[in-house]
Amino acid sequence: MATKEIPYKIYLEENEIPKQWYNVRADMKNKPAPLLNPATNKPCTLEDLEKVFCTELAKQELNDTDAWIDIPQEILDFYKMYRPAPLVRAYCLEKELDTPAHIYYKFEGNNTSGSHKLNSAIAQAYYAKQQGLKGVTTETGAGQWGTALSMACSYFDLDCQVYMVKVSYEQKPFRREVMRTYGAKVTPSPSMETEVGRKINREFPGTTGSLGCAISEAVEAATKQEGYRYVLGSVLSQVLLHQTVIGLETKAALDKYDIVPDIIIGCAGGGSNLGGLISPFAGEMLRGEKKYQIIAVEPMSCPSLTRGRYVYDFCDTGKVCPLAKMYTLGSGYIPAPNHAGGLRYHGMSSIVSQLYDDGYLEARSVKQTDVFEAAQKFARVEGILPAPESSHAIKVAIDEAMKCKETGEEKNIVFGLTGTGYFDMVAYQKFNDGLMEDYCPTDEEIAASLAKCPKV
Amino acid sequence: MATKEIPYKIYLEENEIPKQWYNVRADMKNKPAPLLNPATNKPCTLEDLEKVFCTELAKQELNDTDAWIDIPQEILDFYKMYRPAPLVRAYCLEKELDTPAHIYYKFEGNNTSGSHKLNSAIAQAYYAKQQGLKGVTTETGAGQWGTALSMACSYFDLDCQVYMVKVSYEQKPFRREVMRTYGAKVTPSPSMETEVGRKINREFPGTTGSLGCAISEAVEAATKQEGYRYVLGSVLSQVLLHQTVIGLETKAALDKYDIVPDIIIGCAGGGSNLGGLISPFAGEMLRGEKKYQIIAVEPMSCPSLTRGRYVYDFCDTGKVCPLAKMYTLGSGYIPAPNHAGGLRYHGMSSIVSQLYDDGYLEARSVKQTDVFEAAQKFARVEGILPAPESSHAIKVAIDEAMKCKETGEEKNIVFGLTGTGYFDMVAYQKFNDGLMEDYCPTDEEIAASLAKCPKV
Repeated sequence: MATKEIPYKIYLEENEIPKQWYNVRADMKNKPAPLLNPATNKPCTLEDLEKVFCTELAKQELNDTDAWIDIPQEILDFYKMYRPAPLVRAYCLEKELDTPAHIYYKFEGNNTSGSHKLNSAIAQAYYAKQQGLKGVTTETGAGQWGTALSMACSYFDLDCQVYMVKVSYEQKPFRREVMRTYGAKVTPSPSMETEVGRKINREFPGTTGSLGCAISEAVEAATKQEGYRYVLGSVLSQVLLHQTVIGLETKAALDKYDIVPDIIIGCAGGGSNLGGLISPFAGEMLRGEKKYQIIAVEPMSCPSLTRGRYVYDFCDTGKVCPLAKMYTLGSGYIPAPNHAGGLRYHGMSSIVSQLYDDGYLEARSVKQTDVFEAAQKFARVEGILPAPESSHAIKVAIDEAMKCKETGEEKNIVFGLTGTGYFDMVAYQKFNDGLMEDYCPTDEEIAASLAKCPKV
Repeated sequence: MATKEIPYKIYLEENEIPKQWYNVRADMKNKPAPLLNPATNKPCTLEDLEKVFCTELAKQELNDTDAWIDIPQEILDFYKMYRPAPLVRAYCLEKELDTPAHIYYKFEGNNTSGSHKLNSAIAQAYYAKQQGLKGVTTETGAGQWGTALSMACSYFDLDCQVYMVKVSYEQKPFRREVMRTYGAKVTPSPSMETEVGRKINREFPGTTGSLGCAISEAVEAATKQEGYRYVLGSVLSQVLLHQTVIGLETKAALDKYDIVPDIIIGCAGGGSNLGGLISPFAGEMLRGEKKYQIIAVEPMSCPSLTRGRYVYDFCDTGKVCPLAKMYTLGSGYIPAPNHAGGLRYHGMSSIVSQLYDDGYLEARSVKQTDVFEAAQKFARVEGILPAPESSHAIKVAIDEAMKCKETGEEKNIVFGLTGTGYFDMVAYQKFNDGLMEDYCPTDEEIAASLAKCPKV
């Protein structure tokens, strides 16, 4: 129990921004399974990876032994513009719920990209610049990652080419304009600029695109242009590594007030924000020093941890990326189109998957309408309008706080508030108008999708 | 000159949030002229004002003698959720400009309403609640004020009725949905719910509304419903009073590092954010203690300070509010529709007007395209996507920093970054596409509008 009076917002000093990322793989006895080259089914080498990824990032991807990786000074300088991020005591939410629980959230939305994605985007842009590259390519669906990468590339004066799923490009013009304001070239996918894009347009005239197609276009664009590499916003271990600034700052802020969390909650799509938040705590568990209850929250419409299988699978629907062993619903799985809340990825970070398989964390899936109800409740008392993704964590934090109300327990609940929902008002509108629907895939649908996983 | 190393962001402690607002009128030898009752042309009494406004707020409006007004604890508790706001050293912008100047900005966009408007919205909602009212009514154009008020009312469980100019209601559905998410009732104006609305709809079928009409509807709705009052987001002295938290925090942060500003810059629409930012500094000048260069920046398309006249005028185009003596372009003046950047108010806070008339501040008007160019430059290096309104201040801060580059002067430049531009992407898109136009009214247009000012 804390003895000092806890402020609404615990801010660290600028010199308390972590100077190293924490590589939780170093403390894992059961390491995540290696990425496999889809052509050979053998573990990817540095040579395999650096054709597509920046060399230093490929090294980080393969590094499962060094527990601490220095954060370069140029990245730290950028972090200073929007970090440390506050750890907020949700006094108003506690009062609203009338719970004895103490609720804290780490708020990563206080930057223009509106989310935690910037933590990795700036790192990836930096390593690309260091390597002397001209630019990077990527895909974006909802646009959070594309926005963050555009900002990062603008800062380092790198060319940024974003393949944006056509339906999002058309329906989310504001996301697109933010990226353009930061100087990115945003192309609706499938485009006529790549072979794969032209092929898809020929085969499916009028298609509005998919993430899988956009990935394929971005990878092709990276490999066909001199001085370009492809970058990704989640799933990969390098991304999770960069996101550990979230967890390290959270732990430092809690330690400052002698707060020991009982429950740590994060939303899980590709797993990088969750992994970044929990890494330092999972490390303590892995080293046998502490015990926490860690909960990953995923949408009921895309339940990779709770209903998927732990096997090797393609990372992308286009099947151009390495194979990863992960909890997956099958790379062809696409959540119902009425699912508005992000976290639509079919698989899960291999680090998070292994920790889950080893029992270090539990997982829950939640209904979309419940998520928006929690989001609205949170917004009305805490002020911040949360991203739908982040609101999955809010939902379970509220559930746990209500359990404490029943039992009278004064638990410390910490959750990650990964971003803001300014660009998600179409979904909020659906909810406000009572038009939002829930979706839960049948066992048959999942089984059919899983049947297409590669045999490795 | 500062001797301590200055961080990127100067954060005050929670207990350094101001506990009193500073009422600069108390230190003004030439007081702002009183509001006049439009029926009698006599100074408004408390009785006049409290029919429309909350009683405590009406008292604040009339109080030009008490220099310090206590901030109630409930408001302080809310402030703690998003204040203190950081004072940011724009290291990256300085580097980009290669200027010896030191540039600082007070960032008020780190809350869901996205702007400084919340500082006054929460105060006004509090006093309404204290008075036992059921709710408040207001108008909103672009939506910043309506959003802030919705959040504040949601916190205090007050009914909030927002009359939103119909064209904005239709073109800015996301702003509308944020307000609805916070529980506000948002009505496109002119509506069929008020007499004045029905009258206007009869006379001008198909009209898309105006701010003047929305004000008239909101005032009618407040006065015709038991337990309701009307609230306003700028112009009034009470609003400027609440916004002094901006200036007081700015001064405290500067003092902490022994920084003495040479130039203080704010954008000016109705004048409340500018007035709030400069009040503590203007107070020092009024008391003869210090001298600063203070610059108000307004759009060239709505140049009330630089080209208006200092006379009594209506505060609203509907002519239902009290008369105020202010720099005005005439209450019928409406900026060209291609003006996207906010700050469209025809007049100016009577406090700011009097300070300007007495030579305590200077004013500049700037072109819209120059403003967006400055906004883009700022965004690309400082990360934050600024609101078009705030970007007026950025433009002049950059101008001043470039002058320092010529002269070699190491001036300290402080400006107010009032908010973020997430909901202004239509304007950014116009700029990105090269379709943004500038507008400058002719002398004849302004003279014709001014000719309709009331004879007092």
